Amino acid sequence: MLFHVRMDVNIPSALPEAEAAAIKAREKAYSQELQSSGQWRHLWRIAGQYSNISIFDTASIDELHTLLSTLPLFPYMKIEVMPLCRHPSSIRSNDL
Amino acid sequence: MLFHVRMDVNIPSALPEAEAAAIKAREKAYSQELQSSGQWRHLWRIAGQYSNISIFDTASIDELHTLLSTLPLFPYMKIEVMPLCRHPSSIRSNDL
Amino acid sequence: MLFHVRMDVNIPSALPEAEAAAIKAREKAYSQELQSSGQWRHLWRIAGQYSNISIFDTASIDELHTLLSTLPLFPYMKIEVMPLCRHPSSIRSNDL
Amino acid sequence: MLFHVRMDVNIPSALPEAEAAAIKAREKAYSQELQSSGQWRHLWRIAGQYSNISIFDTASIDELHTLLSTLPLFPYMKIEVMPLCRHPSSIRSNDL
Amino acid sequence: MLFHVRMDVNIPSALPEAEAAAIKAREKAYSQELQSSGQWRHLWRIAGQYSNISIFDTASIDELHTLLSTLPLFPYMKIEVMPLCRHPSSIRSNDL
Amino acid sequence: MLFHVRMDVNIPSALPEAEAAAIKAREKAYSQELQSSGQWRHLWRIAGQYSNISIFDTASIDELHTLLSTLPLFPYMKIEVMPLCRHPSSIRSNDL
Amino acid sequence: MLFHVRMDVNIPSALPEAEAAAIKAREKAYSQELQSSGQWRHLWRIAGQYSNISIFDTASIDELHTLLSTLPLFPYMKIEVMPLCRHPSSIRSNDL
Amino acid sequence: MLFHVRMDVNIPSALPEAEAAAIKAREKAYSQELQSSGQWRHLWRIAGQYSNISIFDTASIDELHTLLSTLPLFPYMKIEVMPLCRHPSSIRSNDL
Amino acid sequence: MLFHVRMDVNIPSALPEAEAAAIKAREKAYSQELQSSGQWRHLWRIAGQYSNISIFDTASIDELHTLLSTLPLFPYMKIEVMPLCRHPSSIRSNDL
Amino acid sequence: MLFHVRMDVNIPSALPEAEAAAIKAREKAYSQELQSSGQWRHLWRIAGQYSNISIFDTASIDELHTLLSTLPLFPYMKIEVMPLCRHPSSIRSNDL
Repeated sequence: MLFHVRMDVNIPSALPEAEAAAIKAREKAYSQELQSSGQWRHLWRIAGQYSNISIFDTASIDELHTLLSTLPLFPYMKIEVMPLCRHPSSIRSNDL
Repeated sequence: MLFHVRMDVNIPSALPEAEAAAIKAREKAYSQELQSSGQWRHLWRIAGQYSNISIFDTASIDELHTLLSTLPLFPYMKIEVMPLCRHPSSIRSNDL
Repeated sequence: MLFHVRMDVNIPSALPEAEAAAIKAREKAYSQELQSSGQWRHLWRIAGQYSNISIFDTASIDELHTLLSTLPLFPYMKIEVMPLCRHPSSIRSNDL
Repeated sequence: MLFHVRMDVNIPSALPEAEAAAIKAREKAYSQELQSSGQWRHLWRIAGQYSNISIFDTASIDELHTLLSTLPLFPYMKIEVMPLCRHPSSIRSNDL
Repeated sequence: MLFHVRMDVNIPSALPEAEAAAIKAREKAYSQELQSSGQWRHLWRIAGQYSNISIFDTASIDELHTLLSTLPLFPYMKIEVMPLCRHPSSIRSNDL
Repeated sequence: MLFHVRMDVNIPSALPEAEAAAIKAREKAYSQELQSSGQWRHLWRIAGQYSNISIFDTASIDELHTLLSTLPLFPYMKIEVMPLCRHPSSIRSNDL
Repeated sequence: MLFHVRMDVNIPSALPEAEAAAIKAREKAYSQELQSSGQWRHLWRIAGQYSNISIFDTASIDELHTLLSTLPLFPYMKIEVMPLCRHPSSIRSNDL
Repeated sequence: MLFHVRMDVNIPSALPEAEAAAIKAREKAYSQELQSSGQWRHLWRIAGQYSNISIFDTASIDELHTLLSTLPLFPYMKIEVMPLCRHPSSIRSNDL
Repeated sequence: MLFHVRMDVNIPSALPEAEAAAIKAREKAYSQELQSSGQWRHLWRIAGQYSNISIFDTASIDELHTLLSTLPLFPYMKIEVMPLCRHPSSIRSNDL
Repeated sequence: MLFHVRMDVNIPSALPEAEAAAIKAREKAYSQELQSSGQWRHLWRIAGQYSNISIFDTASIDELHTLLSTLPLFPYMKIEVMPLCRHPSSIRSNDL
């Protein structure tokens, strides 16, 4: 099942730079792992913002929440989830 | 270049049903043509709403606007466009 | 899987009263059928409003959208969907 | 009487981790006590957010406020309350 | 129990004037009946608007909803309800 | 003249607890004094929130502002004022 | 006492032009009468909009509401009222 | 030319009280100077808020911005500007 | 002086097509006249919307309002105006 | 291609003044370099605000994002991007 997810990152300036860098490195590694597994199907940057638009593909809502809430940047993000379904005019076999 | 587009359809109840059906049929045909050409890359329905989330891939903003403003449902839609760019953590070669 | 759904009904005053009554009767019958099947798990009225809060339990997002978009009142409702998951502090075995 | 309650948790990063953990543990214990007593009827996590949707069942508004304002996380939550009543189409005997 | 209710009236211009006048007359009579019974405890006009702020005192949420949804102007009003409870600093014995 | 006032309290966590307690005690004493004088006519807690709905009765706007801006909690509150007037359907002689 | 009033005019296109013109003429005459009496102290157009910003000076809120609700354009306006009081830094003797 | 300006003051609690008092004193002196020169034509307090509504009269937008951005409280204010013009129904010769 | 203007066009579907076409033709001719005179300095379409972003250059706010309110599409547009001034980092001699 | 960009600057008061001054100096130098290259086509200050309206002209969305995200003030700004295209009524050859 597909979920449209928007993440807005807001790292507090009080967080030491080295710690922030470590968190971002772990975030990148984990996000690439989830992309490889097919659970994080698309990942785009919104131009001009420290935000992304993502498409997740998980077997359940619980699986989606587990993935999102274990992201290293989770405590510093505002996340909005919208469930998607197949569009009757779509011709792509895998957009469902 | 990729653009994130959200379309909310609102057909006025005063529009005769046959006319509405004809417009929707033309919309479907045209959207499938644009999907085939690769310009309308993704098309999903938002669950519970007469709305879609789409990803367009066009060579310019003018090309995007021409496509959107010639959609048969254009006069009955609220459209919001957000420019996307490659995310530094993305591993998909074609998500750019 | 559980989905939190809010529906706000807005029947245009131009709709003939008999037709509106027929639609509402079909809506009621269909909603009770879905409650019996277990797919429409909870249904409450918001005090003072022609709106409801509902909890749906479906096997997929597509199933949810099919149910919602075939409601007789669908053309006259604003619908918002929020995916729910199990809360780690919940003690109810069936709240998942 | 039933109340629809949404709670959004926002623990300030300045709060020492041990103190935060202690508050969360007390919150969990207290919430489970209220679930056992039947006053906190449902508790769900909103996917992707540190937020919950709850249904409370109390004999009065004052009882509801007392429960909410004594939650250990109360100082760190934004809470919105919506009074619910029986829906005329509901077939569940206990959804009132 | 006390409920804070805001009502914004919006009568469509298509409604014949005589019909509108009849509805308003029934609304006035019914509102005064509810004030006499003590269920509609306060009723104020918001300056410059066709809106009111009201305090209702009912034994249950269902009773409140029954009163509001049977107001003759109900189909033409946007209504918002907020449950109130006793303030710990209040000195008025009947403000609960 | 009557004014509808909503106050949302937000005490910064950096404020020492003893100081906060002293401010709240002064606030309570002052609010009760204003209730006794008849200037602060009603005071209710909004369920689930550190907020109140109040009705003030003052001879002028300047008197209202003087009362509000000298509240001990004034620096920590968001305040919204709405002027009220007599409703033509009101039957309470003192709701003006 | 001074009140800051914003009026946004929205005349429905279904209103016959002659009727609209007559209403506007009566509005203009009445507004000038209120300006002459000193009750409508200032009247400015917001650039680019069919809206105005006004300052009213009335002895009571009831007087203000009577003036506003008898404006010929009242049924076609959205009105927002904000009570003003003397600013401690003001040097104008009549800005109170 | 006239500009409608709303200023909402928000002094951070971390600012030492003596420094805040000095800034406010300079603000008052400067605002009175601008009132004397005729550039700051009106200044009112919004009841219940640390905010004001002002009317500025400057020869250009650049002059307006220079005045506003050199206010001692400028770093602590949210400012909104709306250009005003003469209202066709105004009878005051100097409201332009 | 420069003003940033956003116009959102919304032509009611009840307007006969020929009349709408005539209004649009007059709008185009008038807008090009104002562009030639230098008063309408820039005019861009917002991608995907029947809206534009414009920069006007007029000697006064009254001149701006006269231009905007005499646009043939004025009754069908929502217009928002923001006064602009020279940016201290700008290197363009005519961006003022 | 043209992009409409709004930037709202919000430098935290905790940032040492010398550091803030250095960042602003680098921002100014970099913005002037981008203006000289033609990529930052227009730059205006919004009157009364620490905000600007800009028009960027870049060959791609990725180029735009690279420019914006390397601005020295980027961590302290809220940025909104809107893609623009040629308006059919525009007579300026370079407004595309």
